[in-house]
Amino acid sequence: MIKQVKAEIVAVGTELLLGQIANTNAQWLSQQLANYGINVYNHVVVGDNLTRVEESFYQAQQRSDLIIVTGGLGPTDDDLTREAFQNISQLSMIEHQPSMEKITAYFAKQQATMTPNNRKQARVFEGAEVWLNNAGMAPGMCVSFQNRTWIFLPGVPREMKALATEHLFPLVQQLVGKNEIIKSKVLKFIGIGESKLEHELKDIIQAQTNPTIAPLAQDDGIVIRLTAKSESDLQASQLIEHTEDQIINRVGSYFYGSDQDTLEGKVIDLLIKKQKKLAVAESITGGLFTGKISSVSGVSSVFEGGIVSYAAHVKQHVLDISEETLTDKGTISEACALAMAKNVAAKLGVPVGIGFTGVAGPDEVEGQPVGTVYIAIYDDGKEQVEKWMFQGDRNTIRNRAVLKGMELLYKWLKS
Amino acid sequence: MIKQVKAEIVAVGTELLLGQIANTNAQWLSQQLANYGINVYNHVVVGDNLTRVEESFYQAQQRSDLIIVTGGLGPTDDDLTREAFQNISQLSMIEHQPSMEKITAYFAKQQATMTPNNRKQARVFEGAEVWLNNAGMAPGMCVSFQNRTWIFLPGVPREMKALATEHLFPLVQQLVGKNEIIKSKVLKFIGIGESKLEHELKDIIQAQTNPTIAPLAQDDGIVIRLTAKSESDLQASQLIEHTEDQIINRVGSYFYGSDQDTLEGKVIDLLIKKQKKLAVAESITGGLFTGKISSVSGVSSVFEGGIVSYAAHVKQHVLDISEETLTDKGTISEACALAMAKNVAAKLGVPVGIGFTGVAGPDEVEGQPVGTVYIAIYDDGKEQVEKWMFQGDRNTIRNRAVLKGMELLYKWLKS
Repeated sequence: MIKQVKAEIVAVGTELLLGQIANTNAQWLSQQLANYGINVYNHVVVGDNLTRVEESFYQAQQRSDLIIVTGGLGPTDDDLTREAFQNISQLSMIEHQPSMEKITAYFAKQQATMTPNNRKQARVFEGAEVWLNNAGMAPGMCVSFQNRTWIFLPGVPREMKALATEHLFPLVQQLVGKNEIIKSKVLKFIGIGESKLEHELKDIIQAQTNPTIAPLAQDDGIVIRLTAKSESDLQASQLIEHTEDQIINRVGSYFYGSDQDTLEGKVIDLLIKKQKKLAVAESITGGLFTGKISSVSGVSSVFEGGIVSYAAHVKQHVLDISEETLTDKGTISEACALAMAKNVAAKLGVPVGIGFTGVAGPDEVEGQPVGTVYIAIYDDGKEQVEKWMFQGDRNTIRNRAVLKGMELLYKWLKS
Repeated sequence: MIKQVKAEIVAVGTELLLGQIANTNAQWLSQQLANYGINVYNHVVVGDNLTRVEESFYQAQQRSDLIIVTGGLGPTDDDLTREAFQNISQLSMIEHQPSMEKITAYFAKQQATMTPNNRKQARVFEGAEVWLNNAGMAPGMCVSFQNRTWIFLPGVPREMKALATEHLFPLVQQLVGKNEIIKSKVLKFIGIGESKLEHELKDIIQAQTNPTIAPLAQDDGIVIRLTAKSESDLQASQLIEHTEDQIINRVGSYFYGSDQDTLEGKVIDLLIKKQKKLAVAESITGGLFTGKISSVSGVSSVFEGGIVSYAAHVKQHVLDISEETLTDKGTISEACALAMAKNVAAKLGVPVGIGFTGVAGPDEVEGQPVGTVYIAIYDDGKEQVEKWMFQGDRNTIRNRAVLKGMELLYKWLKS
C-alpha cells in the first residue's frame, strides 16, 4: 500500500499546445484526486509527436508513482499514446474483444462502414486491467509497470470522466489505504460576490485547518469546498458538519445546496413540494431558461412548457398581451414582463409563470440600453417584477438573466 | 534571428495542481504564439515548491529556446519563481524603482499599510528588460540567459494578457523575423465523424506540409485547421486556398463554414437569404434549440419565437395537435413531430417550422426507448421527418438532438 502517492497527469494532444482547448481534464482529475489526498506534483502537456511523448512518459516513470495519461487513444495516425508507452515498456498489445464488439456494433447501428483505423482503438496492453468505455470507443487501461501505476484514459472529457469515476477513483481509494478518510463537501451560494463572502467568513477561513475551507467563484455562483481528514468516516463528517454550521450561521441566506445540487434542481424540488406547476415566457433569453429548467431529471410532474415570444406579434397573438401594454408601456417594460408571466401561466393552465424581457444587444430597443432586463414572477394572484442591468456581450447578458431568474424564482418559492 | 523557435510554457502554482483553476493562461498564450508560427512543444505545471520549480526550469533551459513562466511572482512566501530562477541562473536581483513606486502608491491610495512582503514584487533580475504592470503590481521580465530567452509574467490572467500583448508579442515578432507570414484558417464540418473525415483525407493530410492540416473533434462537429507559412501574405493565402479546395473537393458536402462561423449563424444566414421566417416547437429539447437560434446576433428579422410543449396537454391546447395524433400515433412519433413543426409555423404565422419530440430519459415513454428522437421540418407545404437514436445521459441526448436539428435545418435550407 503506497501511502504518499506522487501523481502526475500527462495530456497528449497538439490541440492543447495550439491553444484550441484548455487542459480541463487535468483540472478535473486534480480536483478529484485532491479529495483522496493524492498529491499531484506535475501536469505535463505534450503534442502528437512520438519522440516527445516518449520523453514525457520516461520522465514520468522516473519521478511519479501514479501516472495518468489522457488522450492519444483515438483511431488516427496522430494518436500515439499506445505506441509511445509500448516503446517505453516493451509490453505487447492485444485486441480487446468487448471493445472491438462495441466498435463494430456502433458502426452497424449507424449503418456506417467502419474504416480500418477504428480497429486500433480496441488495442490494449497485455496484462492491463481494461475499462470498457460506455460513452465512446477506446477503453481505459490500468497497467502496472516497474513499480509504477499507469492509467490511460481517452481525451474526450465526457469519456474520461465516466471511466475515472467508475474505475480510477475506486482504485485510488485502495492505493491511499483506508486509514485516512478524506471527506469533502461543496456548499453552494447564490446572490453574493466572492469578496463579500470571503470578507464575511474571514476569521473562520483563517482559523480553520481541518476541514480546510476553499471558496471559488464559478459562473453560476460561489462555492465553498470543505475538506476534512480523519481516521473515521464519522469524525470526518462531524468536522465538516461543525464548520458548515458556522458558515451557514453567517451567510445562510445565500446558501441553496451542496455537492451535486443545482439551483434549477432546487427550484424543481420546491415546485414538487408545493405541488405547483410552472410555465415560462421568454423574450430576451429566447428559450435558455426553459432549456435549463427542463434539464432536470423528473421535471415533467411540475413543468408544462413555455412560449418563446421573441417577436412582438407573438407576445400579442400567442401570449395574448394587450396592444396597450405593448405600445404604451413597451415590450421592454415591467408591465410586459408581468403580462408574460401571468399570461403564460393562464395559457398553459398552471399557477406559476415567469417572464423575461430585455435588451441583449448589440443595439438598444425602444430607447432602452443594452443590458436592461425585466424578470417577473406570477404565482396564483401574487406577483413580483424586478429590473436589472447586466454588463457584457449578448450571450453574457442572456446567461446572467437566466441565472438571476433562477435565483429570484428559488427565493420566491422558498419564502 | 531564430527561425524555428521551440517554446515552452511553465505555470507555477499549487492552485493549478489542486484543480482550483484550469491552466487557461497556457491555452491563451499558445493560441497567440501559434499565430506567430511559434511551436509550443510543452506545457508544464508545477506547484509552489522550490526544488520542483527549479527542476522544471532546469529542464526548460535544456530543451527550449523561449521559456514563458506564468505565476509565482506575488508577495507571499509561496511565490517562488524569482528564487528558483536565481538559483538556476545565479543572476543577482535589484529593486525596480518604477514598480516600487507603483506598489507604494497603491497602498497609499487604499489607505492601507503596506506589509513588507509586498516589496518583493518589485524585485527584478539585473540586466532584465522590465515590463511595468499596469493592471497589477509585479512587473513582467524578459531575461536572456545562456542562449535562451526567459519571459516572466504574473499568473493573474488579466495582468498576464496585458503584459504579453504590450511587450511579449512584439518581441516574438522580432524573434521570428518579419520575413515569414503565418496564416491560418479553420474549416468546419458537420455530419461526419473524425475517423471517417481523416480516412477520406488521409493521403492529403500525409502529403501536406505547408499548410499543415490539423483535424480536431469538437462537441459541435469536426474542424480542420490549416496553417501556412510563407514570405508573402498573398502566397500564404494561396497555399491555404489550394489545400482548402482539395479538401472541399473530397468532403465538401459536410462543410458549412470557416473560422468564426457557427452552424446556427449559417442557418440564420440562409433564412435571411431566402427571406423566410422560422418558428420552433420543442418537447425533448425543452427550449435549448430556440435558445441556440436566438444566440445569433441579428436573428430577429427571421426568428419569431417558439413553443416549448413539454406536457402533452400543451401540445394539444397550445399547439393544436389533434387528440387522434397524440393518442393513436403517440407523443413520441413521426406524426407528432410533423404536427409540431407544421402547427408552430401556422400558430406564429411563418412559413418554416421545426419540431422536436423524443425520450431523454431516465425512463422510456410510451414504450419508446431512451434516446429516441424525432425531428421534423415544415417549409411552406413541404415536410421532412427523421428518427434518430442517440446515446448518453439525459442532457447528452438533448444536446445531440439540438445539434442534429441544426444540421438538418441547415441542409434543408441549403438544398
